[in-house]
Amino acid sequence: MNSLPLSQLCSKLEVTFSDLTLLKAAFTHSSFRNEHKREHMKDNERLEFLGDAVLELCVSQYLFQALPDAPEGELTRMRSTIVCESSLVAAARNLDFPRYLRLGKGEELSGGRERPSLVADVFEAFIGALFLDQGLHVVEQFMTRHFYPRIEIVGERLHRDYKTMLQEYVQKQNLGVLMYDIIAERGPAHDREFVAQVMVGGTLWGEGVGHSKKEAEQNAARKALHR
Amino acid sequence: MNSLPLSQLCSKLEVTFSDLTLLKAAFTHSSFRNEHKREHMKDNERLEFLGDAVLELCVSQYLFQALPDAPEGELTRMRSTIVCESSLVAAARNLDFPRYLRLGKGEELSGGRERPSLVADVFEAFIGALFLDQGLHVVEQFMTRHFYPRIEIVGERLHRDYKTMLQEYVQKQNLGVLMYDIIAERGPAHDREFVAQVMVGGTLWGEGVGHSKKEAEQNAARKALHR
Repeated sequence: MNSLPLSQLCSKLEVTFSDLTLLKAAFTHSSFRNEHKREHMKDNERLEFLGDAVLELCVSQYLFQALPDAPEGELTRMRSTIVCESSLVAAARNLDFPRYLRLGKGEELSGGRERPSLVADVFEAFIGALFLDQGLHVVEQFMTRHFYPRIEIVGERLHRDYKTMLQEYVQKQNLGVLMYDIIAERGPAHDREFVAQVMVGGTLWGEGVGHSKKEAEQNAARKALHR
Repeated sequence: MNSLPLSQLCSKLEVTFSDLTLLKAAFTHSSFRNEHKREHMKDNERLEFLGDAVLELCVSQYLFQALPDAPEGELTRMRSTIVCESSLVAAARNLDFPRYLRLGKGEELSGGRERPSLVADVFEAFIGALFLDQGLHVVEQFMTRHFYPRIEIVGERLHRDYKTMLQEYVQKQNLGVLMYDIIAERGPAHDREFVAQVMVGGTLWGEGVGHSKKEAEQNAARKALHR
């Protein structure tokens, strides 16, 4: 399989590179470089090292600002869920990154273009190249357009855990009955909002708002856990 | 012990903060906040989360640019040696950070002001606050002035390992005699430079330059290892 031209990727992503060798390196696997030793090209391993740190910072700042009341432990937990191989692979595939990758013949034959670790590395390397060439601000814009909208799913999964966590806590500490109540519904039909309360042993422990009953309950459970 | 005023720290470090509450939070331990709950102040835990990622990126970029030929594995190893508790503590103490920290009474009595983990956290939190208030570029300037000049010591320790690593490799692979030679000395007495060669089994494996014979040999060993 021949890789697609990077100029096409740039126009699709609406990003520009001053130094195209950086972009080229980000999409060059070491197996391809090894097959073209005479050309002295660079592969994406060092860019991946840098991009990993850039991603970590971007997501940290995003969470820091999106969740102004979340304690440090929660931020750390969410960051490691968001900056994980599977979410990087999903983002890279969504942008067709694997099709632009220059891969050695052996790697190609053994399915390297589909291998998650390899695909995640390309995403990190691209972020590293974009950071070097255009700075942190442009990386943030890229993430806002192509990455953060996708992590809501991850956030949802995390929230789903709060009810379980609260239940486990209440049972362990023998605190009595755990009860959720939807105490209000408001707003127009297309933008409905629900307010949930969670009671533990007859006492109000938390209140939460959400666009579904489930989400409202999850937020109430989260508040209760932070109590 | 009363903490020193932060205005003094700012003028000493030649940094300015637009939002002084960020700086204040960076130097507020949770134990102090717990003792002043009515005042709704912030502590440094969330800033430490952010600062940790800022530091990681700064040091990654520094290494990426300082060592243009180092493979990814070496960059990763060096980064984890540099961004470790002991180096953060050393940098924080060198800048008198512990004296500006607001600490709860219990923590103060149990020696919290000297505790390495706590001191390292203050350094990270300060970096986080500086990043939020002044951006990555100002953090880089701060690091260049107050952090990177100190890591040469760490670098030196790392380099010292190359000779050991090469020796282990040569023995393991049964490659024969390992020999170092100083093949040249040059420059004036106050800025003397040495050139070392390392031979393995009679073949030249690497050449290195340094301001001491030892450093030149270490660099030669590093080159040999990269071969």
